[in-house]
Order: sequence, then structure tokens, then C-alpha cells
Amino acid sequence: MSTITLSKANRIISAAFAKGKELELAPLTVVVLDAGGQPVSVQRQDGSSMLRFDIATGKAWAALALGMGSRKVGAIAVERPHFFQGLSGVSGGRMVPVPGGVLVRDRKGAIIGAVGVTGDTSDNDEACAVAGIEAAGFTPDAG
Amino acid sequence: MSTITLSKANRIISAAFAKGKELELAPLTVVVLDAGGQPVSVQRQDGSSMLRFDIATGKAWAALALGMGSRKVGAIAVERPHFFQGLSGVSGGRMVPVPGGVLVRDRKGAIIGAVGVTGDTSDNDEACAVAGIEAAGFTPDAG
Amino acid sequence: MSTITLSKANRIISAAFAKGKELELAPLTVVVLDAGGQPVSVQRQDGSSMLRFDIATGKAWAALALGMGSRKVGAIAVERPHFFQGLSGVSGGRMVPVPGGVLVRDRKGAIIGAVGVTGDTSDNDEACAVAGIEAAGFTPDAG
Amino acid sequence: MSTITLSKANRIISAAFAKGKELELAPLTVVVLDAGGQPVSVQRQDGSSMLRFDIATGKAWAALALGMGSRKVGAIAVERPHFFQGLSGVSGGRMVPVPGGVLVRDRKGAIIGAVGVTGDTSDNDEACAVAGIEAAGFTPDAG
Repeated sequence: MSTITLSKANRIISAAFAKGKELELAPLTVVVLDAGGQPVSVQRQDGSSMLRFDIATGKAWAALALGMGSRKVGAIAVERPHFFQGLSGVSGGRMVPVPGGVLVRDRKGAIIGAVGVTGDTSDNDEACAVAGIEAAGFTPDAG
Repeated sequence: MSTITLSKANRIISAAFAKGKELELAPLTVVVLDAGGQPVSVQRQDGSSMLRFDIATGKAWAALALGMGSRKVGAIAVERPHFFQGLSGVSGGRMVPVPGGVLVRDRKGAIIGAVGVTGDTSDNDEACAVAGIEAAGFTPDAG
Repeated sequence: MSTITLSKANRIISAAFAKGKELELAPLTVVVLDAGGQPVSVQRQDGSSMLRFDIATGKAWAALALGMGSRKVGAIAVERPHFFQGLSGVSGGRMVPVPGGVLVRDRKGAIIGAVGVTGDTSDNDEACAVAGIEAAGFTPDAG
Repeated sequence: MSTITLSKANRIISAAFAKGKELELAPLTVVVLDAGGQPVSVQRQDGSSMLRFDIATGKAWAALALGMGSRKVGAIAVERPHFFQGLSGVSGGRMVPVPGGVLVRDRKGAIIGAVGVTGDTSDNDEACAVAGIEAAGFTPDAG
């Protein structure tokens, strides 16, 4: 299994910011977590509001928790709200179930971390996470 | 009252994994709790995602908490969400109300523990828990 | 970086139990955590008391948290209790700072998980963790 | 009041890392918080252990909480442990009272954030925080 080095994490973030600039998005916060859910690198653009670090982390953490993109976690939360309530409870309230949390897979398909983005619409946030992961040479799984 | 020995708990888990293999399921995490809700044995198959231990525990814990399979706890959560919200609150967020948490009863019908399984669909998870409990000579109560 | 497979984790635990039997120790609980602090395998021997899972986990988690064996974390706690109080706080009370939590290193020296043992004296607990890790072909770091 | 822009925060971190390299320190984690205690930028060097983000944050947060460097918070914790216990309690366990959390002051002396560093000895951690803050043109207050 590979790991996400700090150098790769910063590459992910700079590419995610570049995508946000290209799409003229609102200020973003981007978090890169390792496979165990700990931050490798975090950057919050000027003007990104107070809770953005926690939101971005909650998206990436949700993806790692269930082994699927936070978009799919969101679908579970909509279809089976009681299930998501339970998941949220056992996680200590750490999951944000909307698009923008994307798994990072290495060449063999192993999950080596996750990226969380917040600041614009959830769909745009996700697009930036995907762009960042691809720019660093990994495979995004927004599932 | 009987208790679930470590030997029996490991028998439950190996049989649950065998059922999962037979049904060609995704990687599973299986937790065996004693009557007090403490782990006797826990095993997470390779590739089972980060929060799986907590999810499996939350299903088994919910079953013990109310004395019924987590399938029935899930029905309560769907029919009376305000009730489940209260239950979740007083439990400190420890309950996951979907199938896959199954009570273990001895020959006299006493509850001696619970098994929680997660990784595939909730119905498949439950089938593995039932198979494991039966293989160890106990009576499953999936509620 | 390697990972601790379920098969390897169970090998660690059976060897730790064998060491406990050889030394005629009290019933043990052994926890194997991955590099992110999540359980891979957990087994509690018959007669091992209620909180043993949490204690074993707390030792292994403390080792991973600071990148040193829980024996060394314990030395910090004794020498600088205010520092340990802070560490305990930011960890959400998850650290048990006594011997028995041992890092698992792969051939290149990378930390790939940790083993926590509890049930007998802390020194004996640690000896079992070390024996288990060695039996599985990894390098223990009880530091 | 000035604020710490993302650009300035990254300047602080790169200078802190440069100081660590110059002093041949262990891998570091550096956190830059704004005046409200929220992360602006966080970077964890390869090999920096699991809890390092929380430790670095706990040092910087402690500095902001009391308006003094975490070195001085540590002195309080040693001299009046009952007081620190109360502070830790009301903060929800968020304070790590050892050197390495340094206030960032602007030219008028206003507190505009704090930097937390962990990974080597507390004294070395603090030296890196100070070097980073100075390199970005702000005034460090290590208290």
C-alpha cells in the first residue's frame, strides 16, 4: 500500500485550488487525510468561513469510514435517515454526508486516504477534489 | 446462564466468514459481544473500511440494548423516529438500527450476548450473523 | 508500507496467548490496531474483566499516537503529568500510559500498527505483545 | 487588526520546516490557527505520528485561550495543577500545556493567531514556531 506524502498532499491541494479558480468558485477549504483519517495537509483560502475545516474533514472522514465517496454516503442518509443517524452516532458525529469527500486510491486500488473540499456547491467541491487527486497521479473514487 | 467463551466466539466468527465467502460478499467485520455489551472477539477482514468495527458494534449493542434484533430496532427507528432519537441520545449514540445485529440465546432462551456484522447489504450481514450463531450451537434471535 | 492482515493479526494474538500460558499469567485481552488506530483483531480470554478491551486499546492507541511504545508514554506521564493531561484531553481520553502497548514495524521500519495487551502486570503484558509481534515476522518497538 | 492570510500561513510553515531541517529535528507537524482558533494551514511531515495534528493544535489553542505562549500555560499547569485541570475541563480538553504554542502578534501588538509545533523536544518545537512567525514578518510571543 502506498501512502500520501506531504509533498503529494500539497500537490492535491494546489491543483484543487487551481480548479476552483478556473471555475470561479467561492473560497475553498481543502483537507487531505491519510488512510487512518488523520490530516496530512489542510489549507483554507482567505474568506472561507469558520467551520469549513470541520466540514471538509467530515466529508473526507465519511468517505473513509464507509469506503465510498461522501456522495454515496449522502444517498444512504437520504434514503435511510435512521441508518445515517446511527452511523453518525457511532462515529461521534464526525460525518458530513454530501458530495465533496473523495477517496484516494493507489494504482492497485487500495484506499490510501481521502480529500474533502468545501466552500462552493457540493458538486463543485467534488470536482475540485477529483481534479486535485488526478493531478497528483492517484485515482479519485467519488462513488 | 451460559456465557460465550472466546472459543465459541471465534467459532461464531469463522462460520460467519464462511457464510460470507459462500455468498461471495464484500469483506466483513464481525463483533461478538457478551451480555454486558463488551467485546469477546472482533475480526475485520482485509479491505473492510475504517468505521466497520464501530458499525458492527453499534448493531450488536442496539440488539442488547432493547433485547431484540437490530432489524426490529430499525423498524422502531423508521416508525417512531422521535423515539429512536431519544434512545440514541441516552445510549450516547451507540446504536446502529439496521439488520445485522443478532441476539445470542442459550438453550433456556436467556440472552448471553449479541453478534454484529457489517460490510455487505444489511440483509446479507444478518444472514452471516445467524449462520455463525447457529454453527456455535446457540439460538439466533434476529428480531 | 506493509499492512497487518487479519491473518497476521490472529497470528500475533495466538502467539501472545501462548506466551501468557507459558508464563502462567492471568487471562489476557489482546488488541491489534492498524496504523490508523482501528481494530484488526481483538480477543478477550475467559475471565478477563469488563474494561479490558478498552485498556488494551488505550495502550496500543497511545503508542500510535506518539510514535513510541506505551512504556515511554508512561514515562512522560510520570515526569510531566501536566503534559500527559493535555495529551489525554486532545485524544478524547483514549490513552493508557503504561507498558503493554507496542508498535509494530515492518522491515523498513515503518509503523504499520500496534498491539495492546492487558490482564497481568504491565511488564508481563508487554512481554506477550513483543512475543506476538515477533512470531508474526514483524519488529516490536516497546520503546 | 490584520489577519493571517493563507499565503502568510504557508510562509510560516515553510520557515518552521526549514528551521527543523537546519537543527536536524524529528519530523514535525505545524498548525497555524487564526484569532478564533480555526486552522488556516496545517502540514504534517512524513513520519510524524498519529496524534501530532491534535497535539500541535492543542498547543496553539492553549496559547490563544489564555493570551500567552503555551510555555507560560505550562508553568501555570505545573504550579497550580488544580487551575489547569479546571481550564482543561472548561475547554473540553483542548489544551496541551507545554512549549511549542506561540502567539502571532501584528505590528500593533494585536493577537492575530497562533502557531503550534510538535515532533521534537518542546523547546525545539517552540524554536521552529518562532522562526516561522518571524520569517512571515509577524512578532512571535512565546510567553
